[in-house]
Amino acid sequence: MAIVTLITDFGTRDGYVGEMKGVLLERCPAATVVDVTHEIEPGNIPGASWVLGRVWERFPEGTVHLVVVDPGVGGQRRAVVLKQDGRWFVGPDNGLITRAISGEPSEARAIDPDSLGLAPASVTFHGRDLFAPAAAWLAGGGAPDRVGRAIDPAKLVRLEFPAPERVGVAVRGHVAHVDRFGNLVTNLAEKDFAATSMRFAPDRIARRVATFDDGADDEVVLLPGSSGLLELVVNGGSAAAATGLGRGDVIEVGE
Amino acid sequence: MAIVTLITDFGTRDGYVGEMKGVLLERCPAATVVDVTHEIEPGNIPGASWVLGRVWERFPEGTVHLVVVDPGVGGQRRAVVLKQDGRWFVGPDNGLITRAISGEPSEARAIDPDSLGLAPASVTFHGRDLFAPAAAWLAGGGAPDRVGRAIDPAKLVRLEFPAPERVGVAVRGHVAHVDRFGNLVTNLAEKDFAATSMRFAPDRIARRVATFDDGADDEVVLLPGSSGLLELVVNGGSAAAATGLGRGDVIEVGE
Amino acid sequence: MAIVTLITDFGTRDGYVGEMKGVLLERCPAATVVDVTHEIEPGNIPGASWVLGRVWERFPEGTVHLVVVDPGVGGQRRAVVLKQDGRWFVGPDNGLITRAISGEPSEARAIDPDSLGLAPASVTFHGRDLFAPAAAWLAGGGAPDRVGRAIDPAKLVRLEFPAPERVGVAVRGHVAHVDRFGNLVTNLAEKDFAATSMRFAPDRIARRVATFDDGADDEVVLLPGSSGLLELVVNGGSAAAATGLGRGDVIEVGE
Repeated sequence: MAIVTLITDFGTRDGYVGEMKGVLLERCPAATVVDVTHEIEPGNIPGASWVLGRVWERFPEGTVHLVVVDPGVGGQRRAVVLKQDGRWFVGPDNGLITRAISGEPSEARAIDPDSLGLAPASVTFHGRDLFAPAAAWLAGGGAPDRVGRAIDPAKLVRLEFPAPERVGVAVRGHVAHVDRFGNLVTNLAEKDFAATSMRFAPDRIARRVATFDDGADDEVVLLPGSSGLLELVVNGGSAAAATGLGRGDVIEVGE
Repeated sequence: MAIVTLITDFGTRDGYVGEMKGVLLERCPAATVVDVTHEIEPGNIPGASWVLGRVWERFPEGTVHLVVVDPGVGGQRRAVVLKQDGRWFVGPDNGLITRAISGEPSEARAIDPDSLGLAPASVTFHGRDLFAPAAAWLAGGGAPDRVGRAIDPAKLVRLEFPAPERVGVAVRGHVAHVDRFGNLVTNLAEKDFAATSMRFAPDRIARRVATFDDGADDEVVLLPGSSGLLELVVNGGSAAAATGLGRGDVIEVGE
Repeated sequence: MAIVTLITDFGTRDGYVGEMKGVLLERCPAATVVDVTHEIEPGNIPGASWVLGRVWERFPEGTVHLVVVDPGVGGQRRAVVLKQDGRWFVGPDNGLITRAISGEPSEARAIDPDSLGLAPASVTFHGRDLFAPAAAWLAGGGAPDRVGRAIDPAKLVRLEFPAPERVGVAVRGHVAHVDRFGNLVTNLAEKDFAATSMRFAPDRIARRVATFDDGADDEVVLLPGSSGLLELVVNGGSAAAATGLGRGDVIEVGE
């Protein structure tokens, strides 16, 4: 029983996700379809990549991750299936995989609708007409080479994220993600930067604590987050609201 | 393993959807329960009908579509189960099925709680007390005639949607749905109107393009949508925001 | 095939729920994972308890209810599994179970990560690192005593909700929950108070009706709700908007 996870920016009230689920279950009745999210902001490829990066490896081998945030639908961007560590990734080749596939995938193919025997796709909804059928094919144990021809993995589109940089005795990073709770997740991995504090404004420094509870009321503190990245948080509150910081804003740690 | 899909206006934070899922799985443990949407605007029967119209046929035969947008709950409206092309539809008889069932359903029955052996229903939550049990019964392969007596399909409540009308050399239609992306889906089917442009304001005309990518920045363009209807869209933007148009507003194509 | 239901305040767009689902399916591939809600307001323990109270008994015996609204994550609060009437409850010991478990649970254990063979937990995401593995263990039929040592059920944290009180010839209650539709659910059970009207402002009284349909346009009326509690509602409208009342506000019935 193969798992197919869904990450989209479709919301649910228009029926688009429902159509995709119908196609998946029609073509692969044994699939376990798992909603990861449909609440990616419309067209937010980095946001979807963030989610994919967090979840892909948590699911068992054989899982198919179907990711459709596709502002270029119907245009020149490629439709691809990739494989890494036993999990499949299906979606447009527009950078979505950046935070999940760092090295070279073990398989990389362009989806060929003819090879899969698909009806002509609409120009606006490849999630239903192309990606869901390809995901169902793989979830059902279909041969990967029927999906389409192999492509050069080095040519996959990847997003560029700025790396931490040394500035004198400090290391400058940025806010990589703001979560629902207002936690500010930075691009600094705890294992690389055993920071005891973090500067988040010219005259404001967050001290490192062990747990949320250690923060005083309304105090912005520094915690190692659940993805291994350093986070600015407020106990019972929103660090985003308390600091005014958002995605891309700069933070600094000493070394 | 029968599929039961859910379309409601309940949201999820009150627990109503959870209660319905519990009832479904208690009564039919083998059912695959599929969320289509719970984000229909409260009481928006046309909105739910739109979603049902898009998804119903994508699911395999045997699927039970459970649709509960039910502002008249507890009142005079009937509770019904219908069948078309092998799929079941369960919900209040208030027009929800309009966009899904155009002709005569092959089965049409009023739900009889006594016949199904149900406890007395609450007056406010037939989704849990009446529709979910009826859906579970059908999903489990129960005999349809146990649901209740056959009714006259000609008397099912249907919404009225204005048809396109000829105005001189033009055809006048309207915006039938505005989706999450701000795409304006009209009631003009591409197969009936091979329009090369669409007028959406006295002095504004959208040209027909082949894909989103063909639109210039911020340009409102005309595309054939994924449901076969003509749509006004903006590449990477919202046609609703760009035009100020909403559901019911008039558009025109030449002939 | 055991059911695991999910109630969280995570939303879905950060991937946290996806990670939990991955952990559940990795550890218990046969589990049926059911979304109840992820739209609890961040940190709203009473709101999550409300939902749990409504849904827990609707699901069949053997179901595992995984409830993670956990503002004290990483701190002193305990991580527990409880059992009542054949259903399991897994989550932080912070009052979440108040509306579901009124008496003494048949099992109560503190989760011991070592006993379950878990890797060290993050300090911010016990939903993924502690609660989901414990839920998967129970869903897969694992022995409860492996989860951890038995604890004293009398010491479980419980929320305090004010009880109805007698005031002269009246009984004073409060609004316990405001739902998506603006219905005001009170803490007065219909079986205890056969009220024919309810005072909701010094000079405003709602009459009791049998169904939504019986209310006049915009009239605030009194109905027995689907959880057995008296509710103030407006036919086709929002009683919250019409009255200005919210959670905790006082209402009165005669006796």
